[in-house]
Amino acid sequence: MSVVAENSEDSRLQRLQDILASGAVREAGRLLRSLAPAEIAHLLESLPPAEREITWNLVDEEHDGEILLLVTDEVRANLIRHMDPEELLAATANLDLDDLADLVQQMPSAITTQVMQALDDQRRNRLEAVLSYSEDTAGGLMNTDTVTVRPEVTLDVVLRYLRRLGDGVPGDTDKLFVVNRDDNYLGILPLSQLVTRAPEDTVAEAMSLAMQPIRADMSTSEVARRFEAHDMLSAPVVDSQGRLLGRITVDDVIDVIREEGEHQFMGHAGLSEEEDMFAPVLASTRRRALWLGINLATAFLASWVIGQFEATLSKIVALAVLMPIVASMGGIAGSQTLTLAIRGIALGQLSSKNARALLMKELAVGTLNSLIWAMVVAAIAGFWFGSSQIALLIGVAISINLISAAITGSVLPLLLERVGIDPALAGSVLLTTVTDVIGFLSFLGLATIFLL
Amino acid sequence: MSVVAENSEDSRLQRLQDILASGAVREAGRLLRSLAPAEIAHLLESLPPAEREITWNLVDEEHDGEILLLVTDEVRANLIRHMDPEELLAATANLDLDDLADLVQQMPSAITTQVMQALDDQRRNRLEAVLSYSEDTAGGLMNTDTVTVRPEVTLDVVLRYLRRLGDGVPGDTDKLFVVNRDDNYLGILPLSQLVTRAPEDTVAEAMSLAMQPIRADMSTSEVARRFEAHDMLSAPVVDSQGRLLGRITVDDVIDVIREEGEHQFMGHAGLSEEEDMFAPVLASTRRRALWLGINLATAFLASWVIGQFEATLSKIVALAVLMPIVASMGGIAGSQTLTLAIRGIALGQLSSKNARALLMKELAVGTLNSLIWAMVVAAIAGFWFGSSQIALLIGVAISINLISAAITGSVLPLLLERVGIDPALAGSVLLTTVTDVIGFLSFLGLATIFLL
Repeated sequence: MSVVAENSEDSRLQRLQDILASGAVREAGRLLRSLAPAEIAHLLESLPPAEREITWNLVDEEHDGEILLLVTDEVRANLIRHMDPEELLAATANLDLDDLADLVQQMPSAITTQVMQALDDQRRNRLEAVLSYSEDTAGGLMNTDTVTVRPEVTLDVVLRYLRRLGDGVPGDTDKLFVVNRDDNYLGILPLSQLVTRAPEDTVAEAMSLAMQPIRADMSTSEVARRFEAHDMLSAPVVDSQGRLLGRITVDDVIDVIREEGEHQFMGHAGLSEEEDMFAPVLASTRRRALWLGINLATAFLASWVIGQFEATLSKIVALAVLMPIVASMGGIAGSQTLTLAIRGIALGQLSSKNARALLMKELAVGTLNSLIWAMVVAAIAGFWFGSSQIALLIGVAISINLISAAITGSVLPLLLERVGIDPALAGSVLLTTVTDVIGFLSFLGLATIFLL
Repeated sequence: MSVVAENSEDSRLQRLQDILASGAVREAGRLLRSLAPAEIAHLLESLPPAEREITWNLVDEEHDGEILLLVTDEVRANLIRHMDPEELLAATANLDLDDLADLVQQMPSAITTQVMQALDDQRRNRLEAVLSYSEDTAGGLMNTDTVTVRPEVTLDVVLRYLRRLGDGVPGDTDKLFVVNRDDNYLGILPLSQLVTRAPEDTVAEAMSLAMQPIRADMSTSEVARRFEAHDMLSAPVVDSQGRLLGRITVDDVIDVIREEGEHQFMGHAGLSEEEDMFAPVLASTRRRALWLGINLATAFLASWVIGQFEATLSKIVALAVLMPIVASMGGIAGSQTLTLAIRGIALGQLSSKNARALLMKELAVGTLNSLIWAMVVAAIAGFWFGSSQIALLIGVAISINLISAAITGSVLPLLLERVGIDPALAGSVLLTTVTDVIGFLSFLGLATIFLL
């Protein structure tokens, strides 16, 4: 977290909140007009609901569409709810097709129909093409604003063609796409080549064949890794016949990467990466309640295990005092392994092919740590309760739980992945269930056998 | 996780492992030569240590430098350890300056000196300039390979100048930087403008003034947010006097964003974002042991709290059975709030300016959920142990703990941030300590007062 960032953004937020509190609406409007759409989007996400709504109404209508695209899904849905049909229709004007596709999917269907009708035939057909691909594929991410050239023309002709197009060339164009008469993708012509080669060279001579096109059905996370691996700024998207459909630009890929990271982080706490910090209280309560309910079920399962040893606990209260330590150490150790495995799966670096190697390493690490901490905990517990028997028992129980945690943490995420359950979401709940149950069961079970 | 990605990468990993197992080293070398450096880097990260070392030795030496840059810090340190000085020196040839700066910082200092000596004066001065900035600032991220032009020349002259430079223009150049005689940054000339405007226009007419330069001391996370907000492909870096020092390209920004996401996710389990999945067992054990030790201290604190109520527990064993539920529900609820707050801080959307609004919302959500789950748990516990007194007690304790969890989860990360402790790393341990202690204290404390 940078001090610079905090200062500039904080002061902006502070200033806006101060102005809104003083009721100087006109001044707030002036402040907003001085900001870029991305800065306004950021401010909107940082504002509590009431101030957010006032601010949204003050925003220049021509920026509505762009800002809606920049906020998270949840904030967007919230803002859209406060807009009337005309405003929504106006917000969709002048958007890129990939952005328009993102936006219409979240609008009421009546609006979507109106938006479609307002488009010319070419744009409508293209929008329908983009909408026909799922949001998490290359097709859903692509834009159709490609500039294409034929291989046989000279660079001089290309330059003259581009000057004629003028503003028709998108500002973020870094390369042209070379296609044949049937629109089949042949290669790329980077602008850096176009401006450094001799004008009389042909496109065929100057173009690069090195860039593999992206199939429209490739997943967005694979697209993101491709962009990262090859430091690409934009890439061609083709259909199954190799025909050029559009291009993906790196700014959309950055969103994918940001969301992947947030998905893992927010997922372990049962939250969505789209979660709005200032979501309405009732909506938040409902979503949180679901997660608490799932976790309560696992907590009761652990309680039920403890309940099986009521007789033992009533005789040796020290067990009740110490048992959370056994469960907690297992949970911590297991979550480290689980976290490593979930990241490995997300990066495509862990699969059934090298799972055994990870399991072996984690088992070794878990066994070593189980020995270290079994001794430490045994020493403290033995000293505390003056009982070498309890010391021995808790040491063995901790060893068992840490080793089970290493196995569960390595194997569980791949198992979940295989049966189609998202390990980032379900992994930590299931892991804790296992480490709680095995922790209580081993400690209280051993005590029942050896101490009674 | 995409099926496509898994298949292609899996089969590659599988094939390489099969070949290595059969000892066909020559064939493995052939497979590696067919892969891009990024793909080899990815493979190396997925391989267990022994196979990783064999593979690394098979890699074409000319790609060593590029691959070293692409793997995580920990894997890189590991690979460097197996290289002799000549290999290391060779690996640094032909790298961009920003990449070279990244690499030499991790090399033995004897090698760094040799690398420095091997450079020509201009490159050495530039490298020293990049090295003088911290790795987490814009200066540490920048490259000095900018192409600059003067405002008064015509685009035609610029085009002829670029053709003369030829391959001297970096392949990922999307814009030229306009500077005056003193190298002060004036504006940008996107290549898309250069190729669409009339050749007789001057740079001054065609250039854009809209892009704010980045100060070399800006933090990398602020740089990343700037790139995201304005969909930039590259941006100028200037010193405090406004002189152009270099440029940052979006591929380096993507690394920053990926690492920020991983820092949060890995941090909550006490792991570093650079953690190698196949790190040596002893190194892993040592790092994990530290985290387990910290957590053990908090577990013993919770145990000590329970220990204060031994007398109560020995009379009513049901309390021992139920107490983990109170602690666990608090931990889960608190970690949801904490996660939301940590992300808010990382995105620069949560600060002392709107912390109150978040606290109020989380308190409302926590209170509502505490009422719902207090009733559910009370009903189940009352039925299980046939005691309305225990039902009432656990209900009240759960309410207290969920409300404290909401407060702790909202306030703790900002407090940690203010005193300079990374909330992504320390937040969850401290939160669990609070929810455990308050959970056990409220439940057993109330029981001691009202049931004995």
